[in-house]
Amino acid sequence: MQIATPYLMFLGDVPDRLAAKTAYGIVDWRPEWCVGQLRLPGCAADLGIPDLTIEEAVAKGVRTLIVGVVNAGGVLPDHWITSIVAALEAGLDVASGLHTRLGSIPAIAEAAARGGRQLYDVRHSDQRFDTGKGTKRPGRRLLTVGTDCSVGKKYTVLALEKGMRARGFDADFRATGQTGVFISGRGVAIDAVVADFISGAVEWISPAAAPEHWDLIEGQGSLFHPSFAGVSLGLLHGAQPDAFVVCHEPTRTRMRGVQHPLPSIEEVIDLTVRCGSLTNPEIRPVGIAVNTQALEEAEARALLEHLAAAHDLPATDPVRFGVESIVERIATLYPAGVAA
Amino acid sequence: MQIATPYLMFLGDVPDRLAAKTAYGIVDWRPEWCVGQLRLPGCAADLGIPDLTIEEAVAKGVRTLIVGVVNAGGVLPDHWITSIVAALEAGLDVASGLHTRLGSIPAIAEAAARGGRQLYDVRHSDQRFDTGKGTKRPGRRLLTVGTDCSVGKKYTVLALEKGMRARGFDADFRATGQTGVFISGRGVAIDAVVADFISGAVEWISPAAAPEHWDLIEGQGSLFHPSFAGVSLGLLHGAQPDAFVVCHEPTRTRMRGVQHPLPSIEEVIDLTVRCGSLTNPEIRPVGIAVNTQALEEAEARALLEHLAAAHDLPATDPVRFGVESIVERIATLYPAGVAA
Repeated sequence: MQIATPYLMFLGDVPDRLAAKTAYGIVDWRPEWCVGQLRLPGCAADLGIPDLTIEEAVAKGVRTLIVGVVNAGGVLPDHWITSIVAALEAGLDVASGLHTRLGSIPAIAEAAARGGRQLYDVRHSDQRFDTGKGTKRPGRRLLTVGTDCSVGKKYTVLALEKGMRARGFDADFRATGQTGVFISGRGVAIDAVVADFISGAVEWISPAAAPEHWDLIEGQGSLFHPSFAGVSLGLLHGAQPDAFVVCHEPTRTRMRGVQHPLPSIEEVIDLTVRCGSLTNPEIRPVGIAVNTQALEEAEARALLEHLAAAHDLPATDPVRFGVESIVERIATLYPAGVAA
Repeated sequence: MQIATPYLMFLGDVPDRLAAKTAYGIVDWRPEWCVGQLRLPGCAADLGIPDLTIEEAVAKGVRTLIVGVVNAGGVLPDHWITSIVAALEAGLDVASGLHTRLGSIPAIAEAAARGGRQLYDVRHSDQRFDTGKGTKRPGRRLLTVGTDCSVGKKYTVLALEKGMRARGFDADFRATGQTGVFISGRGVAIDAVVADFISGAVEWISPAAAPEHWDLIEGQGSLFHPSFAGVSLGLLHGAQPDAFVVCHEPTRTRMRGVQHPLPSIEEVIDLTVRCGSLTNPEIRPVGIAVNTQALEEAEARALLEHLAAAHDLPATDPVRFGVESIVERIATLYPAGVAA
């Protein structure tokens, strides 16, 4: 599976920016793939890229229509179906992050079959995987882990891809969530995989590679989240990371969606090393990434300094202060990967 | 979902006893539900219960045909389909542990629809679950955990159900694997659930109950198995057990299907307590169950004595020596649950 690029971003007539969050994420990280946007009357989101008709998009070489929006109530509105069918008839593939499967809509299924086009439902996984084997495979791997869900694990790993490449590393982002799959054009929404195959799917996402190549694997959930820890553990075992970065949001008091308090960064490091050692005894932390958005700059800097000293690790806010300090630590620990 | 009892056990024409392993397990633990068996010419398995035609089974009050066999190559042979359709037409539901979904065979799907009969594919899960909440719910819970897969977790929990009931406890087996689902008539094959819902499915399997009621939850895999640890952790968090029993097979040198050595019982206890504390801070071990089949009796007894002393826990082989010592420990630790 490899979603063909470049993309035409379909926004429908979403009522606000938040409903198009996935689309914004794709444009942020892969602007070169996002040739234009297709908006219907009443659309309240704007990606800041050219508005194109399907015909104009085809003329510009677009290969796939990306439905990177959330539809209210889970039902695909008729006028969205019309646009999707038109894209298929114009020769585009369609990739969607909707809960509704594209192929479950007869008009869409028929148009795709007629034209021999691909439909991708990145929120679902129909791929068959083997169970994980846990055997060490060549190549370096880094995983982002968290004190909670939604603490910047995807952002951090994408920032590291950029920073490590700039430093001369051969490094690739590996997606495990739906927005990430659009950003990389491949990958699997790991939380949609059948439970028996979590680690096996991650082994498939990040296969054997050249010894100094880095796979930068998007983490999910937290080993301490009572809803999703199973996903996080299978992901850790399948990723068999050499290095991990702990992501954290310092103002959060309860874990997302539940009543549990957040674990400390130290607890996360300890349990990640303990469990991760099963498939990679060399696992170690290489940094702390903190979302300091809610803090004043001086307060943010003080917190990061404190965390760096307490854990003997570079600590940064990737959005505010970049990831240079973490890249530097990786270059020190794994010098063979840096370009001469 | 509740599979209607009693059962007619369908064995088809399986070539050996092993192919009917699930059926033997059901007869072992629920003989009162297994009214008869239906075998086709050439069948090499025999459950030791009466051979019945479908008509005879219906006359005896049977409600469900159980396909508790493995078919070679995953394809359902035509002569099995004929028997399954005949059962549906005679008014029985059909429950299957085959990889092939019953409803994917048009003749079976049509016969079920025509007669309004239920089809159960216990190896698959189409049930919708919420994500786990991790909130402590009333009722006592015990989970079996393991140093590996296939070390007697189901057997132990079923033996404990029998032993605890005999001691006056109000205790119910809760199934998380396919054979277990047939044995309890309900439950979910937890490894078939979508990853995001592992702990939520276990919360559904073992809902809030009376304060002194015990749910005895079938464990799966091992926190130390690189293929399946995610399932085991989600199961642990969803089960939020007060008590757990460690199951072990002392002659095994590698974990099932992989190259990894087995963890020690101490490691399993430590990590289970550490991770299980997230949803139940009162979690504690109450026994060790060892499959000593490969050992001479004196050797087995010596090993169990050693393990009991080393861990300060009752250690037994449930098959060879029963589970009385573990039940006794539970009665001592949780006296309120014992009948007066």
